[in-house]
Amino acid sequence: MTDGATARTAFGRKPDRGSHERADFDAVVDASRVGHLGYVVDGQPYVLPMAYGRDGDFLVFHGSTGARPFRLLAAGAPCCFTVTLLDGLVLARSANDSTMNYRSAVLLGSCEQVVDYDEKVRVLNVITDHLLPERRGSLRPMLKKEIAATTVLRLPIAEFSVKSRDGGPLDSGDDVHWPVWAGVMPISMQFGEPVPADDLDEGISVPAVLGLWQA
Amino acid sequence: MTDGATARTAFGRKPDRGSHERADFDAVVDASRVGHLGYVVDGQPYVLPMAYGRDGDFLVFHGSTGARPFRLLAAGAPCCFTVTLLDGLVLARSANDSTMNYRSAVLLGSCEQVVDYDEKVRVLNVITDHLLPERRGSLRPMLKKEIAATTVLRLPIAEFSVKSRDGGPLDSGDDVHWPVWAGVMPISMQFGEPVPADDLDEGISVPAVLGLWQA
Repeated sequence: MTDGATARTAFGRKPDRGSHERADFDAVVDASRVGHLGYVVDGQPYVLPMAYGRDGDFLVFHGSTGARPFRLLAAGAPCCFTVTLLDGLVLARSANDSTMNYRSAVLLGSCEQVVDYDEKVRVLNVITDHLLPERRGSLRPMLKKEIAATTVLRLPIAEFSVKSRDGGPLDSGDDVHWPVWAGVMPISMQFGEPVPADDLDEGISVPAVLGLWQA
Repeated sequence: MTDGATARTAFGRKPDRGSHERADFDAVVDASRVGHLGYVVDGQPYVLPMAYGRDGDFLVFHGSTGARPFRLLAAGAPCCFTVTLLDGLVLARSANDSTMNYRSAVLLGSCEQVVDYDEKVRVLNVITDHLLPERRGSLRPMLKKEIAATTVLRLPIAEFSVKSRDGGPLDSGDDVHWPVWAGVMPISMQFGEPVPADDLDEGISVPAVLGLWQA
């Protein structure tokens, strides 16, 4: 499968760790809530953390109408959106063979601005459902002025690559007998105990759905 | 303090969440192992996950001499390196006021290549000590051919910004009485149980130092 393959998303190093399959891309982006958006101003790249959702064949973003990156992207500036999940530190017997286990999805392209009011509402709901699953129905509904003050962008999932590594260390030759522990230290994102807002009305308990968010 | 301030790192939105203080920058980068590197080819930005270390007034990187981004960066191409720690989901009573707690450091500039052999060794040790604290002394020593096959880069910590948010939701007006739980779901990176390599020699136990890595 070469869904996302172009000359710009071809693999240079370690192509065995790469994929251009759409299912692999979706699996990575669906498992995270924050990615890193790259854009260019006067030849200088900028990289910013950014929340997102996936709306079918698009990644979708929202931000203030006044925010510079959103004005640039709304105008069609080329961008890159990368989502990375760090899964572990791989401890080999040498520093050279030590590495990390990870999953990373890289999407290139240009955004389109969503301007239709009802479509903006629908996409904002997609983002809310991605960031805060099963919570939207209990929230104070969106206001027209909030939607007017929000830029909504979508980036087609067309030109992309996925790279990942898993498994244990790969020491070579006699290195495997070097007398040091080797293996993997798994890493995961974990939710802690919910912290109630200072101004929470009395009698409102933690909803059960928060317990389901654990990645 | 305006250590990292330039026109390019000035804050547009929410300057109250921003800092140009060097101590704030160091605190973010010292607390993570992976950042996202942005560079530009033919006007197209690329963003890739990248391990790093901090060597005094430089962030330092290593990679294969054959890797395209390292060839570009070694030649002085403008880049951006961003480190983000996601600290929690902030659940307001409305989607609009819901947000995330995070710490993010953004560094702009151009890399210098480290070419002196002894200096390369020293910087590679800094990176190993950052990624795998207290482990280097027990590893099989680096080989000259490994060092020759590795490009080492350093990026001056000069032009940067730091942005962060913490604390609970900030609902406005009557929203605070909307009947839904509000607060923060803390997020942290956690290490799991060490997984020994398949080819680990018998009798080698998990070193105590791994228990100290928990962020």
